[in-house]
Amino acid sequence: MAIKLGKNHYGKQAVHLTRVIRHPGHHELRQVTVGVQLSGDYERAHTHGDNALVLPTDTQKNTVYALAKEHFTGAIESFALVLARHFVSRNPQVSQARIEVVEHPWQRLHFDGQAHPHAFVGGGSEKRRAVVELPAGGAPPRVWAGLQGLLVAKTADSGFVGYPKDEYTTLPETTDRILSTEVEAEWEYTSAELDFNALFDKIRLGMLHTFAGHPSQSVQHTLYAMGERVLEATPEVKEISLVMPNKHHIPFNLTPFGQENTNEVFVATDAPFGYITGTVVRE
Amino acid sequence: MAIKLGKNHYGKQAVHLTRVIRHPGHHELRQVTVGVQLSGDYERAHTHGDNALVLPTDTQKNTVYALAKEHFTGAIESFALVLARHFVSRNPQVSQARIEVVEHPWQRLHFDGQAHPHAFVGGGSEKRRAVVELPAGGAPPRVWAGLQGLLVAKTADSGFVGYPKDEYTTLPETTDRILSTEVEAEWEYTSAELDFNALFDKIRLGMLHTFAGHPSQSVQHTLYAMGERVLEATPEVKEISLVMPNKHHIPFNLTPFGQENTNEVFVATDAPFGYITGTVVRE
Amino acid sequence: MAIKLGKNHYGKQAVHLTRVIRHPGHHELRQVTVGVQLSGDYERAHTHGDNALVLPTDTQKNTVYALAKEHFTGAIESFALVLARHFVSRNPQVSQARIEVVEHPWQRLHFDGQAHPHAFVGGGSEKRRAVVELPAGGAPPRVWAGLQGLLVAKTADSGFVGYPKDEYTTLPETTDRILSTEVEAEWEYTSAELDFNALFDKIRLGMLHTFAGHPSQSVQHTLYAMGERVLEATPEVKEISLVMPNKHHIPFNLTPFGQENTNEVFVATDAPFGYITGTVVRE
Amino acid sequence: MAIKLGKNHYGKQAVHLTRVIRHPGHHELRQVTVGVQLSGDYERAHTHGDNALVLPTDTQKNTVYALAKEHFTGAIESFALVLARHFVSRNPQVSQARIEVVEHPWQRLHFDGQAHPHAFVGGGSEKRRAVVELPAGGAPPRVWAGLQGLLVAKTADSGFVGYPKDEYTTLPETTDRILSTEVEAEWEYTSAELDFNALFDKIRLGMLHTFAGHPSQSVQHTLYAMGERVLEATPEVKEISLVMPNKHHIPFNLTPFGQENTNEVFVATDAPFGYITGTVVRE
Repeated sequence: MAIKLGKNHYGKQAVHLTRVIRHPGHHELRQVTVGVQLSGDYERAHTHGDNALVLPTDTQKNTVYALAKEHFTGAIESFALVLARHFVSRNPQVSQARIEVVEHPWQRLHFDGQAHPHAFVGGGSEKRRAVVELPAGGAPPRVWAGLQGLLVAKTADSGFVGYPKDEYTTLPETTDRILSTEVEAEWEYTSAELDFNALFDKIRLGMLHTFAGHPSQSVQHTLYAMGERVLEATPEVKEISLVMPNKHHIPFNLTPFGQENTNEVFVATDAPFGYITGTVVRE
Repeated sequence: MAIKLGKNHYGKQAVHLTRVIRHPGHHELRQVTVGVQLSGDYERAHTHGDNALVLPTDTQKNTVYALAKEHFTGAIESFALVLARHFVSRNPQVSQARIEVVEHPWQRLHFDGQAHPHAFVGGGSEKRRAVVELPAGGAPPRVWAGLQGLLVAKTADSGFVGYPKDEYTTLPETTDRILSTEVEAEWEYTSAELDFNALFDKIRLGMLHTFAGHPSQSVQHTLYAMGERVLEATPEVKEISLVMPNKHHIPFNLTPFGQENTNEVFVATDAPFGYITGTVVRE
Repeated sequence: MAIKLGKNHYGKQAVHLTRVIRHPGHHELRQVTVGVQLSGDYERAHTHGDNALVLPTDTQKNTVYALAKEHFTGAIESFALVLARHFVSRNPQVSQARIEVVEHPWQRLHFDGQAHPHAFVGGGSEKRRAVVELPAGGAPPRVWAGLQGLLVAKTADSGFVGYPKDEYTTLPETTDRILSTEVEAEWEYTSAELDFNALFDKIRLGMLHTFAGHPSQSVQHTLYAMGERVLEATPEVKEISLVMPNKHHIPFNLTPFGQENTNEVFVATDAPFGYITGTVVRE
Repeated sequence: MAIKLGKNHYGKQAVHLTRVIRHPGHHELRQVTVGVQLSGDYERAHTHGDNALVLPTDTQKNTVYALAKEHFTGAIESFALVLARHFVSRNPQVSQARIEVVEHPWQRLHFDGQAHPHAFVGGGSEKRRAVVELPAGGAPPRVWAGLQGLLVAKTADSGFVGYPKDEYTTLPETTDRILSTEVEAEWEYTSAELDFNALFDKIRLGMLHTFAGHPSQSVQHTLYAMGERVLEATPEVKEISLVMPNKHHIPFNLTPFGQENTNEVFVATDAPFGYITGTVVRE
């Protein structure tokens, strides 16, 4: 039975790029991590060690920096599209380029209500993310946007009851618990010609609004409501996938110490954790 | 256009389980992290907050510990099979259970050539991993085994030449470089009735042997050789996927200081890094 | 030459505590990590395995949760003082208790300009920190406050020139660079009876204001200015220590690609990094 | 009340250096992370932004690589001494240089009992560490050696009883528990003219031997025994400090499921954890 190469790809990851955009009177500060992933005619590279078609990942990295000066001035989705088109149009051996751009947001500092022209604060766990896949041969690109690391919690309007019990059940039902999760969301756009920044802000706000206001019966229930809200309000979104780990805050048992814990004192735990994922689609 | 639930699953992740197996005269120490993932009839849980079919992830966690005493005494693949069968056979709403077990290896300490009966050293980055997917309805389980975090390097028999150059190329060709990677490998077995421990040891050793001896023209070239070796030597393996990030060690430029760097002094870098993945299959 | 026990301490670390404070109409959400460290009469515990004076770290952990209900409702410094007094007053073998409380801040969500009563967003790298040391015997506690993980950057008003050159110098002088650091600051208060929340906000804002406005000749130069500002403006602060790693953003060399990099495109690096620390004191 | 600079230092951290030592017929592979820390006459740098005495951290980094070719061929302590002497002797403004070298060990691969000439496996959490402090003015250097990340466990000969109980005690006494810790140890040598590699191996083995064989009444008890053993067996060691976090493995309560847990099934926890530190000295 012969052996051969199956699915494969390669590229440069973790290309950390910072861009200062210099306007008269003020600067913008942007920081992203770019990943390039190429698929194509790489059979002989694997089987014979023939690198004639292997664009070095070092060159890919150089290309990201070289194209940043002219092309990284707006939405990360737009920069990803430029990079994907570059690699596909210039390398006939590439059948598909996939570009991922994760933005590490910097916020402008304000003092006494005044925006500072060139000082910024960063460090949030929340990142914005764009992914573009461009096939060779003229088909249109696919564009996904998303966010990760959005840590949220609500201290009311969340319960978990009515679940099946078996001999391994010890969890008590509750109609009052902390619901906390670190949202990862990714949605696909219907087009590559959109106002990506405005759409991102609208989608993010809608998810937060639904998270806060939803009478949650479970993580699944709230996850679906958040996805539904995005699809209802945003025709430019084809579908949305959400990953919502359950960051459990467990009531600490104060009974041995003669106190009642009326849902005020909790142990914040990292492990184990519930892990809930779902995609909401249009029929 | 109606909105509905697409692909989804849920379960408990990061169930950290330690097992002491007590033999007369000596102990075994095993430590694993278990993940449970269930798919099935969860539409109403998402759309209506109806939890009647949602086996709590807390119960899943309890089940892992409860079944460990009797059933976690051998290969992690065998324990994963027990868990998968438990969840599928006991929960008609489950269409598929996926169990992942990652083992954190402990090595027995030796003093003066004598094995110590109950003292161990751990802490390696290399982990062994098993994944079982069991559909409801009587179809056989699929079993994958693998490893991750296997950090290796070779200081000879590695080069990278003959690649395409464009205006963004600055990388010099080399026939003498450090090749280092952190191997992640996953292979699927043809059966669930195998000697998983013996096969794992044989496959791991074969990959290491090939890595060390292969005259490498690129990461892709060595990746393929390693996969090919496993398939050639192990008929029990259907196919194997390898992920081999290029952990670059870059020669430090000593010329400004009047020294020649004859491939002796390198900068070890974390980012950016080449990222090479490939699957080797049987035709 | 006899052997004996020198300096030692022990305690419970990583006590993750979440507290919901329930007001009519709205909740507060607070999350902290507490560390307890006790010193005292522990010689026989070490030398003879006699645990008669060793308050278990498990009991220390229980105590943190048990005292949280009544006592963790305000500043973290106040909660740390309560814990320190508890351990010292109740355990005659303790010569000093040191309590550290790190707060993981949650911000209330706002929609349409309205504060939400029970939904929050978290996830910032910036943490607030309090440390209390209380000796036995009636001496007053020492109280430190601080922050860590405050990631800041400025894209103007920063240079580095005039430094000594030797045969290992390759760094070019610059009068226009990105200055970025992750500030860690710790200051000691003159008293344990202060408005800790108001002081923290004032000190933090003062450091940010100085960072943004200072014509920086080096990290050292800006570090000192920030510390000086705090001491000048806040008589309640005895001294302040700052740790300011230099998070280098290095201009990418675009010359090989026929472009000039007019300080617009940078490589964000993690390693190696300059590491600058200093304490600013009163004479 | 005047304000002035207190204690301060600066330097380059995270200098990742890889060294291939090329012998006829085989190679050695060494990987270290170097940190340089300088103290001295830096008052005006802080207060006036005058960099005339500030050797750039970039130059420090270059120096590490430039001196590695000739001087990093043996023990990390020896390389640290070379670097410290370089910085002190060449920079009159430096009153003390502190060099830290952490080694990331690579093990040579063996196949069929044969050592491979140039292939290695790495990835352990255990690191070896050396610290040298050299004052200006001719005083001798101080040399510390140590290790960190040494994860060990024993499944017998460990208990914890006889401790004080109060109203917050819930921990049951036990004479049979898992004792696990990640040892961090640092010891000071009496001289800078020693066989550092042989001493390290002897000290490390002695600590492991004591950990394994000691009838442990507590972490403190075993920590002291390990330190005592090192001082007794190694006159070249002045004193030793140990940090031994208690990596708790907690018996899982199987009673609700009708099983007895005879110390076989445990939850491995990360937080909270006991944190025990102690120094063992000569009188």
